Formats: sequence, C-alpha cells, structure tokens
Amino acid sequence: MDKIAVIVAGGSGKRMGSEIPKQFLLLGGQPVLMRTMRAFHDYDPEITIITVLPADQVRYWETLCRNYRFNIPHKIVPGGKSRHDSVKNAVAAISPGAIVAVHDGVRPLVSVALIQTCFDTAAILGNAIPVIDIPESIRRVDGEKSKSADRSAYRLVQTPQVFRSELLIRAFRQPYDPSFTDEANLVEADGNHIYLVKGQPSNIKLTTTLDIQIAEAILESGSDE
Amino acid sequence: MDKIAVIVAGGSGKRMGSEIPKQFLLLGGQPVLMRTMRAFHDYDPEITIITVLPADQVRYWETLCRNYRFNIPHKIVPGGKSRHDSVKNAVAAISPGAIVAVHDGVRPLVSVALIQTCFDTAAILGNAIPVIDIPESIRRVDGEKSKSADRSAYRLVQTPQVFRSELLIRAFRQPYDPSFTDEANLVEADGNHIYLVKGQPSNIKLTTTLDIQIAEAILESGSDE
Repeated sequence: MDKIAVIVAGGSGKRMGSEIPKQFLLLGGQPVLMRTMRAFHDYDPEITIITVLPADQVRYWETLCRNYRFNIPHKIVPGGKSRHDSVKNAVAAISPGAIVAVHDGVRPLVSVALIQTCFDTAAILGNAIPVIDIPESIRRVDGEKSKSADRSAYRLVQTPQVFRSELLIRAFRQPYDPSFTDEANLVEADGNHIYLVKGQPSNIKLTTTLDIQIAEAILESGSDE
Repeated sequence: MDKIAVIVAGGSGKRMGSEIPKQFLLLGGQPVLMRTMRAFHDYDPEITIITVLPADQVRYWETLCRNYRFNIPHKIVPGGKSRHDSVKNAVAAISPGAIVAVHDGVRPLVSVALIQTCFDTAAILGNAIPVIDIPESIRRVDGEKSKSADRSAYRLVQTPQVFRSELLIRAFRQPYDPSFTDEANLVEADGNHIYLVKGQPSNIKLTTTLDIQIAEAILESGSDE
C-alpha cells in the first residue's frame, strides 16, 4: 500500500517569543521541520511527504531548502485557518488505498521505530494513535472548583496518527465540530474504534523556547525512548 | 508563622536504570536533593527543612553532605513503606500554627517565586497547589476502549503542596485510602476546598535518566518559567 506522511507545520511563531516560526528554528544545527521530514524519509525513502505550511512561509521554506541543500522530495500544500482546515487541504489530494500518517511538524524527535509501529498497526487495524502515560497527578477543574482525577485512566496523545486513507477521507466529510482537535477525534466521531499504541516520551512537541533546549538535550543523549 | 518544608526523597533508584537513587544523582555538579533543599533555603533561610529519606540511605547522605560541604540545616526523618507513610512520619513532628510545604525531593528546579506564591496563598486560604496546563491532547482509557477527553478541563499537579499545618495534621488522621496519591487528595478527602495556583512548567519531576538530561538543559538555559 502507498504510504503518505502529512506533516503539519502551521506555527506562526508568536508563542515562541521569537520572530522565526518554531518549525524553522534550529535543532542540532538543522531546521526543526527538516528533521521531522527526515524521520519519515528514514522510515521509508519511498514515502510521499506532503508538508502543510502557511502560504506566507512557502518562499522562506524554499530558501531554507536551498541553503541547507535539503533534497528529500516533498509536496507543499498551503495551510488553512486552523489545523483542521490545514490537514483537510492535504487530505483532499489523497486517494483511497493508501496509509496516511498525520504528524506535527514540530515533533522532530519521533523515532523510526514509532513510525513503523504506527504504520504496521494501521495497516492491520485501520488506525494507530501513539499515547504515553501521564507522569504526574492530575486534577479536573470546573470553574473555581477542582477535584482529583485518576491519572492512570488517561493518556497523553502524540503523533504520528496513522489511518487507512479511506477512513480519513470519509471522516473529513463530517461537518466541522470544535471537538475535532486531532485526527483521532475526527475519525472516532465518524464511528470508528481508535487503536492506541505505545508512544515515545521523548517525542515531544516543541511549543516553547524551553522545549527547543530540552529537545537539544534529548538529541545529545541519543535517546529515542 | 513558622515555615516548614518537608522534602520527600523516597526513591530507591530502581526506575532510573542506575545504582544511585535518583535524589543523589548529580545535576550541574551537585546532588539533586541538595539543589532541592537549597531552593527552600533560598526562599527563606529561617525555614525548617525536614527531609524524609529511606533509612538505609541516611549514612550515604551524611557522607555526601561532608563531601559536598553541604551546610544547610535540616532534620532527617526515616521514610515509611509508601510516600503516604513517609510524609505522615514527617508530619508527626509538626505543631499547629505553622505553614508546611510538602515537596518532591526530585523536583530540584522549583523556583523561589513558585515557593513564595504557594506559601503566600496558603497563609491566606489554607492551602495552595501548583498546577500547569496539559500540553497535549488526552484520551480516557477503559480496558480496550478509549475516548477523547477535553484536556482544557484537566491540570497536571506539581509540588510544593503547601498547607496550614492544622489541615495536614488533621487530614493524616483519616484511615488510609489508595486515592491519597498526594497531599492535595488527602486534605481534600478531609473536607477542604483545594486552591490551585499557577505552577512552573520547568519544575519537572526527575524519574528517568532522560529527565536528568532534560533538567541539565533547563538549568543551562537559566529558565525558571
């Protein structure tokens, strides 16, 4: 089956306290987004990579690719107003009969092993979502009140979220709902069982400047657990 | 009011993949536990520090203190079978009329500002628990099934958890229940409203070898956010 990776890089950089959108910041001397794309290329050099970028960042990206001699083949799709719209734009170009990973552009530390597990599981079961345990106590809040909750009943959800393309194409036909915060929720709302696989704690999402420094440390440690 | 910090260092080191219990591993050239205690000393040099240590680690700790010329005054209380028992042992030595922080020995990056906020809030409201937003989507699991949950309704709970000592002493008189995973739950079960304050994302709990490397990176970045 054809394999496709949709890499979603929608960040405008406002949250990073930096002029440069976070997907372009350097990690180990290389722009974050290039590392992310390389992970999928390393998993399978034949994979089709579709990268969703805000339209006003495409020219900058092309310059970066020249400067860093980045030669992993990929298509660029312009992002929408939200993550949901962005992924929808990418999925519009996908045919049935493929397996599609949707992955955050700012999760560059994803291991080849995790990508493999997700694709293998989705090939058999239809989808695969990586999750990890919550490492601390949690509380449920409700206005001014809060109450202890059982952390062992919850998981943190990562990407890549991998689906048979038919499931994803059909799920995007649903009218938009604010609960569609990721593709797992979207496909679940369309009536599918969601299959969880063991995620990778070091597969962190880079959303703050501190996260970039943490990612550098993980990179130096060589950990992909 | 008297201020007391109960520092709970119960780790046996098994989870760290290391012979040395994690509270004794070096962070920036200094044992983790010393850094943790120093944060409370820096907040208020007059604070009473009570450190709970497994009985078989006390001698090792005393040697470490000599080797590192660690001269922050503190009392050592032997740990119990569980975290709950350990803190109970420490609270048994505390009088009413004080404000007590209970803090994980393996959270050395706690900022003076966060300690101050927790003590100030507990002095007025009776208790203060630092929490941070959950940075990723979450799912609720139930056997083979799982369902998306609204992460905005949940918070990750950190320490120091700070209480007027009367609340803590009374709460420990309750018969033990497995839901008492932290002091907030314990004091809540005794009929008290729990007050949440804004925690510190970099105040991480060191539970894996990777966490130590992440903590080094945070330390080098100078961040206390």
